[in-house]
Amino acid sequence: MAAWGDRLAGVRGVLLDISGVLYDSGEGGGVPIAGSVEAVARLKRSQLKVRFCTNESQKSRGELVALLRRLGFDISQEEVTAPAPATCQVLKERGLRPHLLVHDGVRSEFDQIDQSNPNCVVMADAGESFSYQNMNKAFQTLMELENPVLISLGKGRYYKETSGLMLDVGAYMKALEYACGIEAEVVGKPSPEFFKSALQAMGVEAHQAIMIGDDIVGDVGGAQRCGMRALQVRTGKFRPSDEYHPEVKADGYVDNLAEAVDLLLQHADK
Amino acid sequence: MAAWGDRLAGVRGVLLDISGVLYDSGEGGGVPIAGSVEAVARLKRSQLKVRFCTNESQKSRGELVALLRRLGFDISQEEVTAPAPATCQVLKERGLRPHLLVHDGVRSEFDQIDQSNPNCVVMADAGESFSYQNMNKAFQTLMELENPVLISLGKGRYYKETSGLMLDVGAYMKALEYACGIEAEVVGKPSPEFFKSALQAMGVEAHQAIMIGDDIVGDVGGAQRCGMRALQVRTGKFRPSDEYHPEVKADGYVDNLAEAVDLLLQHADK
Repeated sequence: MAAWGDRLAGVRGVLLDISGVLYDSGEGGGVPIAGSVEAVARLKRSQLKVRFCTNESQKSRGELVALLRRLGFDISQEEVTAPAPATCQVLKERGLRPHLLVHDGVRSEFDQIDQSNPNCVVMADAGESFSYQNMNKAFQTLMELENPVLISLGKGRYYKETSGLMLDVGAYMKALEYACGIEAEVVGKPSPEFFKSALQAMGVEAHQAIMIGDDIVGDVGGAQRCGMRALQVRTGKFRPSDEYHPEVKADGYVDNLAEAVDLLLQHADK
Repeated sequence: MAAWGDRLAGVRGVLLDISGVLYDSGEGGGVPIAGSVEAVARLKRSQLKVRFCTNESQKSRGELVALLRRLGFDISQEEVTAPAPATCQVLKERGLRPHLLVHDGVRSEFDQIDQSNPNCVVMADAGESFSYQNMNKAFQTLMELENPVLISLGKGRYYKETSGLMLDVGAYMKALEYACGIEAEVVGKPSPEFFKSALQAMGVEAHQAIMIGDDIVGDVGGAQRCGMRALQVRTGKFRPSDEYHPEVKADGYVDNLAEAVDLLLQHADK
């Protein structure tokens, strides 16, 4: 593999995944990953542009940023690209009125959206709210529509909490897709539109940007398909087998965000 | 389409699906479908052999038969091919110790099976027991295995209760398949082994047998792939679009079991 200097040459902007890179969520909110608070601070003091690009869909952006600030991170709501606000944009543009299969924590993001007489289902990482009853309600809503529209905030397979691996929205999305015989529209990583909106907000071209994430498919593969480079961290949901993934090869594997930032500050924008 | 006389010629044995053909399940057990109690009785008085072939996996065979007898059906446990007993056979043959993701009603079928230190997951139509917590436990069990084995009792998309359409085990099977990156083994319809075991128990060859069911894919398509003929009833989960299914064409569509039996008694075994 090429030297780091070649692999990171010309990078001007950095997209950071949040869960599994900055912190591990869990009881009481979560814990920062060792070195990540300082790594974000160093990045932000550098010449590199920084933006946060998350599929977090259990919490509103406000809640998420408040939690990260409590954990010591320098982050503001305006720096975060997240799927719920992007979904509201889609719903408004297309005149869609959602039935929401979501966690109560993210419901407020949809306060301005008409939810009467639903003509689509919007699903997110609902956690404990993925009850049989709630899944059935979403299923029945879709089956009653002539043209069922299912929008999923991300399609992650699972994520890591401090207590262990947890099923993510993608698994439940597959359940509804199969039951209804339809395909969901994904808002969030790895959708190219979502990465592009994050790049646009950062004001950096794809070939000048690098994604840092713990998800080999959603973060690394998705960013690369958009023409970006991507590093995988060995934290969060990382598993050793990811380094031998049959389809996706990261531009580099690093132990954690701190190591990624060390390398970037040494080699990027040269 | 050929006349009924040609389509039903030479039939000597009839496999009957239960839910959606004999009765609709629901509050308090369920209700018989109009004409079905008498239709089963007439079939059993005829020269035709009869066997029940169900994917019911919420209840033990004993419970199911007791319910059907309360509803007026002439049926005994020995006449029923069901996925839980077939699964126990597979588990014993392969030395598998299951973690069970099932409804409490069917748990007794697995009483004789060692469930310590699980090396596979067995899932069935768990209904309300498809909680996020129970799904996660099954997911984590699979992720801890070097060679994860997932056995699913059927792979139905949904079924109809008196209160409406309900998600079936297949939807949740797809969720775990996607989250773990594996493929489940299905015991039950439309697995050919399952149909064959029902034919064997009835003592009739595939080309002499006909399946009657409400599921265009699981019942009709599955039976036809085994060399049987198959009728779809317009009861249970039947939807008008089934008659224009892109891949499966039944040998006939009938309003209900009573009409199917009328036709069989008139034309079969000629």
